[in-house]
Amino acid sequence: MPAHYTDPVALILIALMFIGLSAAVGGWLVQKLGQPAVLGELLVGILIGNVAYWLHEPIITVVREGDVVRQIAIYALTHTVTLVGAAKSMLPPGPETARVLTALGSEVGPRAVGVYLFVDALSRLAVIFLLFLVGLETSVTEMRRVGHRAFSVAIVGVVCPMFLGLGAMALIMPGMSLAHDLFIGGILTATSVGITARVFHDLGRTQSTEARIILGAAVVDDILGLLVLAVVTGLVVRGTVSVWGISAITLKAVVFLVGSIGAGIWLTPRLVPRIRRIGFRNVRLLFGLGLAFALSWLANRIGLATIVGAFAAGLILERFFTHELEDEHSLREVLSPLEYLVVPVFFVLMGLQVKLETFLNWHAIELASILTVVAIIGKLIAGPAAGRGVSWLSVGIGMLPRGEVGLIFASIGKALGVVDDTVFSAIILMVVVTTLLTPPLLGIVMPRTEQKHPVPVRAATTTTRSPD
Amino acid sequence: MPAHYTDPVALILIALMFIGLSAAVGGWLVQKLGQPAVLGELLVGILIGNVAYWLHEPIITVVREGDVVRQIAIYALTHTVTLVGAAKSMLPPGPETARVLTALGSEVGPRAVGVYLFVDALSRLAVIFLLFLVGLETSVTEMRRVGHRAFSVAIVGVVCPMFLGLGAMALIMPGMSLAHDLFIGGILTATSVGITARVFHDLGRTQSTEARIILGAAVVDDILGLLVLAVVTGLVVRGTVSVWGISAITLKAVVFLVGSIGAGIWLTPRLVPRIRRIGFRNVRLLFGLGLAFALSWLANRIGLATIVGAFAAGLILERFFTHELEDEHSLREVLSPLEYLVVPVFFVLMGLQVKLETFLNWHAIELASILTVVAIIGKLIAGPAAGRGVSWLSVGIGMLPRGEVGLIFASIGKALGVVDDTVFSAIILMVVVTTLLTPPLLGIVMPRTEQKHPVPVRAATTTTRSPD
Repeated sequence: MPAHYTDPVALILIALMFIGLSAAVGGWLVQKLGQPAVLGELLVGILIGNVAYWLHEPIITVVREGDVVRQIAIYALTHTVTLVGAAKSMLPPGPETARVLTALGSEVGPRAVGVYLFVDALSRLAVIFLLFLVGLETSVTEMRRVGHRAFSVAIVGVVCPMFLGLGAMALIMPGMSLAHDLFIGGILTATSVGITARVFHDLGRTQSTEARIILGAAVVDDILGLLVLAVVTGLVVRGTVSVWGISAITLKAVVFLVGSIGAGIWLTPRLVPRIRRIGFRNVRLLFGLGLAFALSWLANRIGLATIVGAFAAGLILERFFTHELEDEHSLREVLSPLEYLVVPVFFVLMGLQVKLETFLNWHAIELASILTVVAIIGKLIAGPAAGRGVSWLSVGIGMLPRGEVGLIFASIGKALGVVDDTVFSAIILMVVVTTLLTPPLLGIVMPRTEQKHPVPVRAATTTTRSPD
Repeated sequence: MPAHYTDPVALILIALMFIGLSAAVGGWLVQKLGQPAVLGELLVGILIGNVAYWLHEPIITVVREGDVVRQIAIYALTHTVTLVGAAKSMLPPGPETARVLTALGSEVGPRAVGVYLFVDALSRLAVIFLLFLVGLETSVTEMRRVGHRAFSVAIVGVVCPMFLGLGAMALIMPGMSLAHDLFIGGILTATSVGITARVFHDLGRTQSTEARIILGAAVVDDILGLLVLAVVTGLVVRGTVSVWGISAITLKAVVFLVGSIGAGIWLTPRLVPRIRRIGFRNVRLLFGLGLAFALSWLANRIGLATIVGAFAAGLILERFFTHELEDEHSLREVLSPLEYLVVPVFFVLMGLQVKLETFLNWHAIELASILTVVAIIGKLIAGPAAGRGVSWLSVGIGMLPRGEVGLIFASIGKALGVVDDTVFSAIILMVVVTTLLTPPLLGIVMPRTEQKHPVPVRAATTTTRSPD
């Protein structure tokens, strides 16, 4: 019998405090070295995750297993097994699995899973929120002005890594199936724009042409990534590709983007004043986040990344809510404290899930080095496609990070049996390296604006706006 | 194989949108009728929860089972059973259980559990956040000034319902064990201050003497509740009460409150400028929420409610961060949008978990009516203990709501076998009625201030501060 009631949220409180403190310390340290705060958040996450893992700390051990933990929990709930039973049947035997089993079987095991699932969901909301805010700082007019450049960057940035990947595979792993090589190529194509968006944000350069081109290219990239995935899985599963299917995917994605942005821009100024007139309070906050959540969900429904929907929502509202102030504060400004509190959760958690022990496999490192070089060259080549008048190097570097999209690709490839464990480790290494390289490299090639430390509320006020 | 990747947060996005929209509509409707917004949030939750339940909507069915769902999930994860298996072995057979089993066994079942656990954790964070904000608006000097009044109100408000409860039980359920009657009495004592705090907030009266007395009394109430629970469970489990144990509990609680508030007020102005000087950003936000989370966790560790810790953190920082502005915005002001977004989640979720079908049991209604009358009289009598110069009716009504503390008491009683199903239903009805009565009654006896619709950012600026 419980001596007293334990609030189920107590462990989550500690986890959030811990993450917030780590983020603050990490960000502070790297900013002293002139780096964007996000790099510090990633690094402090990596440090804590690996130290705690070596010390067999059960909660961190559970958290760093990331996606696997969610799958274990779902498996355990839908089959007649415990968490440990599910983990045993899902993970290959080995010392790493032994640690996970110990952690899951410990007294705090199930509660640690609960903490992970909450913090993970919060971090996913955080990155949706981040891209919404970036969208709010990006004008559609400007995006259209750089549209053709973004499109070129995206096309080159997908085609080059794909073909370089195919070539590299033919050289170093000859005799593998075409499907295998196509998967590797596909994994190399997808830019993960979260890191770049955050770096531009840290540097106060969200309004730059380079930032707009990269964001536009990332949206196009996401659509192209969908197509590549459809083609490749079609080839692997059915041995053929349906032109009809590919066209349908493209059409859905384009209709979603053009339709939602068009309809949104038309509807918002007609709808919001009416809702306000009825007497609703805080329409700006409710309508803003409501739209962001709705479009994120819708984007995910048609197969795009949630963050593409959130970015679209931001684009829609940039026009309206910038020129329309409630209580002399813009929506962007009002959301700043929330941003400061939740966005670092995503990046610290990302760091926590980087497994340094992957670097102990020599063959994986070899393969990872080649993949990383191909990944970097493939995107740097895309830089000059941005055309004249912008820093091609900034654009190329901004396109470097591969993140969850690449990992999703890899996990589907693993499920299909075309990607083995070593290749999978190599891909994770490639993702880690490209992600960690981006903040310092961008910091070097893109000078900061004067406003060195964006602070909530004040940040939004002092950020220079383009005169559109 | 997945045709595409589904972001695990997609369903949570929809849930949050849905809750946000419901809260806005509910709040708007009751405000038209001159009622505090929180009443609308509760009512809209009740409406949706019960309609969706009758329509067999699986996600809402899972959500409205509330605490039981968490226990089912934990049981399923720690034993070798599925969610459905766990529910079967935990719930009594009957039509209601059949619905829950169908919902849990449906395709969205496990995902609905995930959504519930996230939204529930968020709502618990929200109420912690709310009490922190209320603390930020309450000065320690003022609290000490009303200390003796709050203490009297708390003592009378615990002793009266306890003895009235014992008396009522002796009359209507003679022959029950003393333990049973003491449990019922204990359940009637604990005020749940979340609702009252929110109502004062909605009415713009957080700064009133009545509000301070009620908040102080609620803190004392929580300590007394701990003692009552210890005494009663001691009697039931061991048949005896340890004076030593009771003294230890009291000492721990008092040391925690006096110690943390004293140390906090002394340390904050010495610590914060130093942290800021090192170059940390947003110290106010980080330190503020960090302290709130830390004290909430600590309060829970020693057996007090998490919200008592959050309130103490607010009290500590009221002094410091009110007089110390970063960028011309107070901490209270910067947190307003977050408050507006997350706090209603708690109240809508509370409404969603009210089961109207409980009202179909005649015996439960009879018992509930008596318990409710006793609960109301017991607390109204405590009103005059506030002394002269304040509205005793406001204080009495403000003490009415019984919430989770009563339910926790009841569930421990159920686990010990001293509270049966009918009594349990009656207790839930009593909790629902006292909770729903408080907002409209307080709205009647306490006039609103001029500032009718507190709006984020502006609200904090225009709220009049006491000149302490």
